[in-house]
Amino acid sequence: MALIVQKFGGSSVADAESIKRVAKRIVETRKAGNDVVVAVSAMGDTTDELIDLAHEVTPLPDPREMDMLLTTGERISMALLAMAIKSMGVEARSYTGSQAGMITDAQHGSARIVDVTPVRLREALDDGAIVIVAGFQGFNRDTKDITTLGRGGSDTTAVALAAALGADVCEIYTDVDGIFTADPRVVPKAHKIDRVTSEEMLELAAAGAKVLYIRAVEYARRHGVTLHVRSSFNNNEGTWVVESIDGPNEGDTVEEPIITGVAGDLNEAKITVVGVPDVPGKAAEIFTIVAQTGANIDMIVQNVSAAATGLTDISFTLPKSEGEKVLTALRAGQGSAGFQSLQYDDQIGKLAVVGAGMRTSAGVSAQLFRALSDAGINIEMISTSEIRISVVTRADTLNEAMRVVHTAFGLDGEAEAVVYAGTGR
Amino acid sequence: MALIVQKFGGSSVADAESIKRVAKRIVETRKAGNDVVVAVSAMGDTTDELIDLAHEVTPLPDPREMDMLLTTGERISMALLAMAIKSMGVEARSYTGSQAGMITDAQHGSARIVDVTPVRLREALDDGAIVIVAGFQGFNRDTKDITTLGRGGSDTTAVALAAALGADVCEIYTDVDGIFTADPRVVPKAHKIDRVTSEEMLELAAAGAKVLYIRAVEYARRHGVTLHVRSSFNNNEGTWVVESIDGPNEGDTVEEPIITGVAGDLNEAKITVVGVPDVPGKAAEIFTIVAQTGANIDMIVQNVSAAATGLTDISFTLPKSEGEKVLTALRAGQGSAGFQSLQYDDQIGKLAVVGAGMRTSAGVSAQLFRALSDAGINIEMISTSEIRISVVTRADTLNEAMRVVHTAFGLDGEAEAVVYAGTGR
Repeated sequence: MALIVQKFGGSSVADAESIKRVAKRIVETRKAGNDVVVAVSAMGDTTDELIDLAHEVTPLPDPREMDMLLTTGERISMALLAMAIKSMGVEARSYTGSQAGMITDAQHGSARIVDVTPVRLREALDDGAIVIVAGFQGFNRDTKDITTLGRGGSDTTAVALAAALGADVCEIYTDVDGIFTADPRVVPKAHKIDRVTSEEMLELAAAGAKVLYIRAVEYARRHGVTLHVRSSFNNNEGTWVVESIDGPNEGDTVEEPIITGVAGDLNEAKITVVGVPDVPGKAAEIFTIVAQTGANIDMIVQNVSAAATGLTDISFTLPKSEGEKVLTALRAGQGSAGFQSLQYDDQIGKLAVVGAGMRTSAGVSAQLFRALSDAGINIEMISTSEIRISVVTRADTLNEAMRVVHTAFGLDGEAEAVVYAGTGR
Repeated sequence: MALIVQKFGGSSVADAESIKRVAKRIVETRKAGNDVVVAVSAMGDTTDELIDLAHEVTPLPDPREMDMLLTTGERISMALLAMAIKSMGVEARSYTGSQAGMITDAQHGSARIVDVTPVRLREALDDGAIVIVAGFQGFNRDTKDITTLGRGGSDTTAVALAAALGADVCEIYTDVDGIFTADPRVVPKAHKIDRVTSEEMLELAAAGAKVLYIRAVEYARRHGVTLHVRSSFNNNEGTWVVESIDGPNEGDTVEEPIITGVAGDLNEAKITVVGVPDVPGKAAEIFTIVAQTGANIDMIVQNVSAAATGLTDISFTLPKSEGEKVLTALRAGQGSAGFQSLQYDDQIGKLAVVGAGMRTSAGVSAQLFRALSDAGINIEMISTSEIRISVVTRADTLNEAMRVVHTAFGLDGEAEAVVYAGTGR
């Protein structure tokens, strides 16, 4: 008998009918002989609606009270889900993050899990009950306050429970069939990936793929939790996210594609610090200024300095929403850092190809660059890791670039991908 | 410096604007130098909407999960209220029933308070903060489950907090100016009562008056809590509910009216058990059958038996919603109880006049009966207590009867009562 953790997102429980449908699925899993623990998000757009309501009251809602407010969303859906299951004659009990032993730090709005002590959950499972847990929330032992886990919190709840309970699998239910080789709305020939390593999944998520949150994937990787991303609308196999594929050398088997997926991101902007004196410490000074703003920097590229001038340009990308504060900080530090000027470009697109097979296959970069140049698409920045290559292009060429690259790496499926409404989360 | 507990109902916090208005009021109370604790209901019709949502999922929602679901309403309003107060630069913190130390039995949906241990609230007050507590909810120590207190729960929360914290007053805010001598929508000449004893308030509430719940009034009476029922829309004095008025003999002063108020109730039905053998034990047998259904019986009247037949009729009133189950139980027990037949009448109206002054004034009954007979209104049943006289009339004459009696006892105000939208709760 297996212990299965299942996570259902907001669109899966958007109304009473959906809740009953999800309840039926959970009961089927239980009746197949498994112990079942469910992490559930708030219904539909509830969380966003509560945030809007708070902002009607005040433009700066207190963080502690915001967490008290937002956690009601998951309480509502978990109670309704437990009711639905019980009405089908199967025992079920709902638990808040606090009751489930989800212990966090005191960082309201983005709390980190420090411990998971699911004592009451184990008792309920021993009683034969299905356990429903409110996603996205925890409890701080010092302040005795409720906390929320931030974006992707329900995925993180599910994975954390799976790790703490030693679950055999953590099923993440979504409104698409699994992780795709690219966003099917941009690349119609994308197909569902059968298996992906958690390392690849991390890179895909960081590069913009929108089905799993980085944090949950990283937690799963660190604690050895197997993820299965699948559709809540059918019983098809989805995408398995595993530690590694086929033993130590990914890509050994001929059938494994070198590239697992292609991701695109239009949410970044590029800042170029022009004319940085090419002396030791200047780059550090510039990035210290940037770091103090708290902004998340993505790609960094430094050009070779022009020997004649002794000056170099440093470019980096970051979320558009953080551009303003970084520019302001850099302008303020210009005198001390000594650079000539700043350029801001928010018309960039970032494309990444990800694949564990890249490690052992030469020529992936060349193949990528050739595919893009054959399509007349200019590459402006390049950044790589062991299993990922990212390039920056013009924003308006990104979608075409994704399709071209997807085809060039043999990822095109035989049929057009079925595109579901929704964000795939 | 006084400690004031304030209770705000659903219509007072129906939307963001109302919440900000209530927050302003609370801050004014604090800035006047008082410690303030607030019990708040769910916004507007939230509780009813959540109940409807549950019934969309299943016709028989599990009680434990229902309490988990319903308690989100008060959590939402308390968090928003605390946010609003903090945005005005005043420290405020919200607490669930559990965090506030509201300990109850395990009766989901109608839990009784067994202990109140407001440790965290006292700490917050010592820190100078305004304390906001979710009304209507508590916590059971054995099951560690959230519970709800049933109808009037937020009033009860407020009074229980006032008792446990030794508050100087418990202010119940509503959308009318206070307790009226009669429902102003039925008796336009009704006026606001300045002071009423808790004993009178109990009778008025039991008789149908809809501003305070019996349970909260009884809790206040038992623990010596002074209540002040007032409007959330203005700063006028409302109605003070006190232990006694003017020393041991109510009605001593000439100005105190003999009758404090007139209440009407259209929610009851009358069952007559016809032809009960007039022997010892029969009435007991009949009311044992009734008691086993759990129904709340109100007035009981037994007519003198007809000597010739040795049979008597017993009539009693009860809420219409309980009529069906009681009739069913009585029919089932007819053979053993030996009565002839049952009659059911759901077209009755119950009128009550309440007044502590009744104790020391003769002739109140006579005055009541004369006023009704002068108006051609027939009395079908009579029942009395020390400070209340209740009569049953036809339902369609109830409203007129209330106006007639209101006038006959000198309660008519000089101006027409201002009628607010809302239920007066």
